[in-house]
Amino acid sequence: MGEYEHILLKREGDTVTITMNRASRRNSLSADHLAELLAAFRETAESDASGVVLAGAGPVFSAGHDFGDVAVRDLAGVRELLQLCTELMRTIESVPQVVIARVHGLATAAGCQLVASCDLAVAAESAGFALPGGKGGWFCHTPAVPVARAVGRKRLMELALTGDVIDAATALDWGLVNRVVPDTQLDEGVAGLLARATRGSRASKALGKQILYAQLDRPEADAYTIALEVMAAASQTPAAREGMAAFLEKRKPDWTD
Amino acid sequence: MGEYEHILLKREGDTVTITMNRASRRNSLSADHLAELLAAFRETAESDASGVVLAGAGPVFSAGHDFGDVAVRDLAGVRELLQLCTELMRTIESVPQVVIARVHGLATAAGCQLVASCDLAVAAESAGFALPGGKGGWFCHTPAVPVARAVGRKRLMELALTGDVIDAATALDWGLVNRVVPDTQLDEGVAGLLARATRGSRASKALGKQILYAQLDRPEADAYTIALEVMAAASQTPAAREGMAAFLEKRKPDWTD
Amino acid sequence: MGEYEHILLKREGDTVTITMNRASRRNSLSADHLAELLAAFRETAESDASGVVLAGAGPVFSAGHDFGDVAVRDLAGVRELLQLCTELMRTIESVPQVVIARVHGLATAAGCQLVASCDLAVAAESAGFALPGGKGGWFCHTPAVPVARAVGRKRLMELALTGDVIDAATALDWGLVNRVVPDTQLDEGVAGLLARATRGSRASKALGKQILYAQLDRPEADAYTIALEVMAAASQTPAAREGMAAFLEKRKPDWTD
Repeated sequence: MGEYEHILLKREGDTVTITMNRASRRNSLSADHLAELLAAFRETAESDASGVVLAGAGPVFSAGHDFGDVAVRDLAGVRELLQLCTELMRTIESVPQVVIARVHGLATAAGCQLVASCDLAVAAESAGFALPGGKGGWFCHTPAVPVARAVGRKRLMELALTGDVIDAATALDWGLVNRVVPDTQLDEGVAGLLARATRGSRASKALGKQILYAQLDRPEADAYTIALEVMAAASQTPAAREGMAAFLEKRKPDWTD
Repeated sequence: MGEYEHILLKREGDTVTITMNRASRRNSLSADHLAELLAAFRETAESDASGVVLAGAGPVFSAGHDFGDVAVRDLAGVRELLQLCTELMRTIESVPQVVIARVHGLATAAGCQLVASCDLAVAAESAGFALPGGKGGWFCHTPAVPVARAVGRKRLMELALTGDVIDAATALDWGLVNRVVPDTQLDEGVAGLLARATRGSRASKALGKQILYAQLDRPEADAYTIALEVMAAASQTPAAREGMAAFLEKRKPDWTD
Repeated sequence: MGEYEHILLKREGDTVTITMNRASRRNSLSADHLAELLAAFRETAESDASGVVLAGAGPVFSAGHDFGDVAVRDLAGVRELLQLCTELMRTIESVPQVVIARVHGLATAAGCQLVASCDLAVAAESAGFALPGGKGGWFCHTPAVPVARAVGRKRLMELALTGDVIDAATALDWGLVNRVVPDTQLDEGVAGLLARATRGSRASKALGKQILYAQLDRPEADAYTIALEVMAAASQTPAAREGMAAFLEKRKPDWTD
């Protein structure tokens, strides 16, 4: 695996754990940090791992953009930074692995955006979530994009306009995370959900998650056009053929991919 | 009414009940079964019924596609099957009647898609829902289209990636069904909600449900363009005129359609 | 401030309260009433207020369109009325102020649409919400547009097809309102949430809410295109610069706008 300064990359079995490791900066997302995260997801995408855990070292998950990095940039520079950030968020959605956020402490601004951009999320019961731009001078415009697509409109407005922290139970109720577990059981909670989400054919699931993101937020007829053509084509893959044969022959399937 | 091999069609009062009747195949959706369901909805659409109950005979509501039917098809054949299936789902949304799913046992894959595609759904408290393609070799690409539009993004990902069954209480919490009732009161629960959903002018409601589906999943300005023009035109119909007159004259309205 | 016949307009501190004041007509939205509301929001938009409370005098928040006004109109006349109504709803979303609905009694049809169109909403615990067109002769086509974007699809169908009233607790659970408070504490509840939602730079927040509405209901890539360009440009504003400088210098920010 590549060498990184700001993150830790670890592979155990079929799971890669990417840990943001700038604890002293609350895992804020400087350009260098973002670039390493993007490189790590791209490196992992090329591997045969089936799942990715995104975690943060130290007291919080991630505090979002690093104002020290933003404040010195002109328009072109901030635009470049946000393009890098958006590329990371969309890469998380497009890698073939199932990506799960392991959330503890606080996930704020682009840190909250990371949680919303992962396929799944498990939070420690003491975790909090916020879009704090709402009470500042620079609004959380891009973090609100995936957050809006997880919670309803009124809840998005409350998060974005108040900047207040919601607790893990509220995040679960609003659909921003999938599970809340006691703080001491966070690793087990993450591993348990990831194990269930990575069963079956890896190739089938990789295509599956990408098409889910492709069909969301479109009029239903457009969504069906995408999903139908892909599903028809996917029926002819070795994984689908083996899955159906095993089902009909009442035996355990054997997937090579 | 037409003759069917795989379904039962019954009319009582203003309600047509369409029962999937392939209990030995867990009401799986072979091409023949899909074609009969589509024909039954089209036949019902031409009638003056105001409501449709979609139910399943035997231990489960529906297990989704029939792998025995899929496994023998080439790409063109699966494409044809999925087009038929999608046409059924979209026909349920476009018939003039209010369509309610009566869900018991399990509703999985395209069976879960049926529940999501009905206008309303009432579930027995022991019912379960799943998109099991996530743990297999053929992902639930098309079933995820209407399911995504009922539940939030993180919940969709969990259903689609894990393939796990969620119980009726969770389906209610996530917005996939409208009511959960004790198993022994499923018919009353369905009839009660359907009765309330079929009050008023049948013509007005038929137009209403079709425009709801037309405006969903579009930027708000586009949605308003559709809804405004239809609502203005609809204000001139006999049903709207009678509704307003009755309200202003403090009498019970008398609708001929 | 302008003179109005059907509404009350009051400014206290940074907050403007717009009160629908046709209690004898249950604050129904005649063309004149709509025109005054639109004028009041436009007048407020030009002011330096940071928040708007939309309230109703008398027993209910608003009963929606005034059938006495609709029944006498031909198609062109109803179209004009609905265009005025839609312009009001979209103006609420586009004014620079944070707009909060103070909901008591009933909010029905276009009255429910008003609640859904405000950025935030606080309801008294005895309040109710309905799209009653579903049980009448004129379906709630346009009210369903913003309501659909706050609640899920099955819940929208239930509201629109049954016409039944849901209580405040259900509206909270479904995401139609942000808070439910005891009836006697409605003003405090509204003021408390509005105060938190109007902290920070007014200019930043005005842009923020408008971009939220612009990016919603679009495929994610389109939403990011909008949000990214605006957020990059917004990083160069005095408000953003001051916010970041204050954060880095660990001092309280001082915003002139």
